[in-house]
Amino acid sequence: MTAYHQLETRFRRLGGLEEAIALLHWDAAAMMPPGGAAARAEQLATLRLLAHDLLVAPELGDLLAEAESDAGPDTEANLAEFGPWQRANLREMRRRWLHAVSVPGELVEALSRARSECETQWRAARPAADFARVEPALERVLRLTREVADAKSEWLGISPYEALLAQYEPGGSTAAIDRLFGEIVEFLPDLLEEILARQARQSSPAAPAGPFPVQAQRQVAIALAQAVGFDFAHGRLDVSAHPFCGGTPDDVRITTRYEEADFSRALMGVLHETGHGLYKRGLPPEWRWQPVGAARGMAVHESQSLLLEMQVCRSPAFAVFAAPLLRTAFGGSGPGWEPVMLHRRQVAVSPGLIRVDADEVTYPAHVILRYRLERAMVAGQLPVSDLPGAWGEGLTKLLGIAPNNDRDGCLQDIHWFDGAWGYFPTYTLGALIAAQLFAAARAAIPDLLDSIAEGEFGSLLAWLREHVHAKGSLLSTEALVEEATGAPLGTAAFERHLRSRYLQ
Amino acid sequence: MTAYHQLETRFRRLGGLEEAIALLHWDAAAMMPPGGAAARAEQLATLRLLAHDLLVAPELGDLLAEAESDAGPDTEANLAEFGPWQRANLREMRRRWLHAVSVPGELVEALSRARSECETQWRAARPAADFARVEPALERVLRLTREVADAKSEWLGISPYEALLAQYEPGGSTAAIDRLFGEIVEFLPDLLEEILARQARQSSPAAPAGPFPVQAQRQVAIALAQAVGFDFAHGRLDVSAHPFCGGTPDDVRITTRYEEADFSRALMGVLHETGHGLYKRGLPPEWRWQPVGAARGMAVHESQSLLLEMQVCRSPAFAVFAAPLLRTAFGGSGPGWEPVMLHRRQVAVSPGLIRVDADEVTYPAHVILRYRLERAMVAGQLPVSDLPGAWGEGLTKLLGIAPNNDRDGCLQDIHWFDGAWGYFPTYTLGALIAAQLFAAARAAIPDLLDSIAEGEFGSLLAWLREHVHAKGSLLSTEALVEEATGAPLGTAAFERHLRSRYLQ
Repeated sequence: MTAYHQLETRFRRLGGLEEAIALLHWDAAAMMPPGGAAARAEQLATLRLLAHDLLVAPELGDLLAEAESDAGPDTEANLAEFGPWQRANLREMRRRWLHAVSVPGELVEALSRARSECETQWRAARPAADFARVEPALERVLRLTREVADAKSEWLGISPYEALLAQYEPGGSTAAIDRLFGEIVEFLPDLLEEILARQARQSSPAAPAGPFPVQAQRQVAIALAQAVGFDFAHGRLDVSAHPFCGGTPDDVRITTRYEEADFSRALMGVLHETGHGLYKRGLPPEWRWQPVGAARGMAVHESQSLLLEMQVCRSPAFAVFAAPLLRTAFGGSGPGWEPVMLHRRQVAVSPGLIRVDADEVTYPAHVILRYRLERAMVAGQLPVSDLPGAWGEGLTKLLGIAPNNDRDGCLQDIHWFDGAWGYFPTYTLGALIAAQLFAAARAAIPDLLDSIAEGEFGSLLAWLREHVHAKGSLLSTEALVEEATGAPLGTAAFERHLRSRYLQ
Repeated sequence: MTAYHQLETRFRRLGGLEEAIALLHWDAAAMMPPGGAAARAEQLATLRLLAHDLLVAPELGDLLAEAESDAGPDTEANLAEFGPWQRANLREMRRRWLHAVSVPGELVEALSRARSECETQWRAARPAADFARVEPALERVLRLTREVADAKSEWLGISPYEALLAQYEPGGSTAAIDRLFGEIVEFLPDLLEEILARQARQSSPAAPAGPFPVQAQRQVAIALAQAVGFDFAHGRLDVSAHPFCGGTPDDVRITTRYEEADFSRALMGVLHETGHGLYKRGLPPEWRWQPVGAARGMAVHESQSLLLEMQVCRSPAFAVFAAPLLRTAFGGSGPGWEPVMLHRRQVAVSPGLIRVDADEVTYPAHVILRYRLERAMVAGQLPVSDLPGAWGEGLTKLLGIAPNNDRDGCLQDIHWFDGAWGYFPTYTLGALIAAQLFAAARAAIPDLLDSIAEGEFGSLLAWLREHVHAKGSLLSTEALVEEATGAPLGTAAFERHLRSRYLQ
């Protein structure tokens, strides 16, 4: 067996282990009784340590060097021998190896346990708006995260914050993010003011009267997810406190939460997670369990959920398709069920405290706040004890509002408590990519909006499969965006989208 | 760190991995969409191989030898240093190590994959009564199982069949089983005849009219499981095709299946699995993730489910407690809801084709049939292609009936298709242990039947916790039974129980 084939065998095993971790994580959020939390933390720590051990096995570094030498430089003759997918796989293997060998196993295990414990604390602290309750656990997670960041920074030759970011967005740079986010901060305040002024001149859209039974919401969520392409032979829809898309490409697990007073949150949440799910399901099956077969990163992942939720499912065309389904599902009647009213409610803009409830216009402000705060915390410039105060100040600067309590402030998101530092920027990067991809898809499929209005999503899904999903990790995020859209990633398509949707 | 402490650290990791396997297995049966099956087989094969690798690590044999030498013989001075739990833990480690090193990793992986594939085939073949469809997959499982049996036989110094049996019932011997089963075959035919004759002289018990909605069945199943001691903060109740108790001591997952025409099956099934669940939950927490903290074996496990289902929940006392709950849950009225009628229906005896539906009088015949057939198959004396025919002949000899199709014959149980060879005897060993334990519990708790009639199960659970659950794997099955009941395991208590319940 060549060195490269030996590597494929080892990474296949790692892939199986990581799928098991994904399932245990989903179960903890969607199924597990509360008394199982401590043991689950042990199980996850054990599996993560075993995964780490597979990556840092002494032979792996030698095999990588040997396979890279066998592959040789990217000449035409070499590429015929050792194709672009194999090369990309090798590159991704090297990347994963670098992330692993840079961190001692005990640190991996300690962080895994601290994350699980902190997440459990957070689940109690959040409804009680009791930041003090989770503060020591969060401090521990941050301390261990900074140790990881420092260790990775040294091996990867990038800044500690970028080393964390790279876990979610390989190749992501603070320079690029600062430039893109800077452009957004440049145009957003005026644009938001214009949108709010225009909205204020309109009458409120008619709204249907609830309650909307959970069972009916679930039925229509399943119908809509299926319509846009979710395959329930390879997936499930369940309930969790914090909606997410978990599972594996062959078994996609999406979750949502329901409120009887409002069906829109749950349904839009399901369609958002369905976007993630379609990406996962569309990853190249011939590269299953290999690094190159994995999703490119969380920015592209989020682009797929936002493309579906924001670009497609909050469009006037989608409202034409969905409104009759909703009216039937809830047995409603009256003007609130008209497509135009459904659409107007779906694009209402209102600066608010909660990120996951934010409209797409104010959403970037929530992300920029968190990006600034987590960079400061990782740099040691903002202690955890000062986080609630800094949160209020930061949000006031960006949106002119501040929370009355930490439940609506720094306790609202699971990310930091679960150890996901450097993750937040990917939401807004995803929104930018989504806008640019959807503009390209519309150019490629002239009748796309008509199809959406008729509930036909096949042509869009095929375009996404070809240009995004089936690429796996073959290309960098920038190359993927540029190949699919013909231009490097920028903020222009996003700004055009907002101006077109909210000001025309 | 001493050799023994190093072993504890390693086995703790193995314990975490095995809990992950248990969860993936539960998910496959209770949650997983059909399209996830192939990937799940990969995941399970990967985790089982990693578990195997942990056990066969070259250092482990040396550590065991060193720790055993440190422990020394069981003198009083040595026991003060190195207590009985540590010694038992070491013994169980050695046992697990022997089971692992005797089988090459590739064989473990091949069997794991063959089991998963065969189980998937069986899920389709069973409803179609199509044995031919699963025959090649079963042949493959048997072939690999025989390889495993031969390999273990050599290392363990017991027969190949006993080597398989030992995976479920450590220390189990065919000589002991032959003796116990021989005694049963001796008294059962006459006893069954007497019971059927007595039953024929009675009028049929009144039965309540269905349908019994699944949701109401689920509610009352939860209420009864809770009443007998199941803690839903540490467990769940779900649905699967083949009811079982999975999960872990801190997170017990029991399943059942519902039929609207009959509530009794689902409820008795839940109470049976609750018996398993109480055992699991009561295992010694201070030895969690160590071999000595695990359940003693499947015979003791089954004794706990049968003690609860057969000894307790099919007693006249339990009917007094449960009948009003059932009547309320299903909104019923009339004589069919009287305790005496409920009890009489629960102890109706009728030789039938399906093991899981069998009454406790004819159940041993189903087990003895499977024990004979699997011993012949493992010995190479019965080819898989002859199994359907041998099944019909064997059942005719034991109960005087034979199935018309393989769904009601050799396709009815998951065990062989999922690779569980040598498992079946533990059901009847469990029934014998259950009868002997319950007789001892009644002697120790004079008002036990009155308590049960009042829905008070605390004293029984405390007795079981002390004498069975909290022992983990400290003692052998024989020693556990003898310490708890004052006598070695026999058939007398079981026979007395049957005569008392069915002939008095």
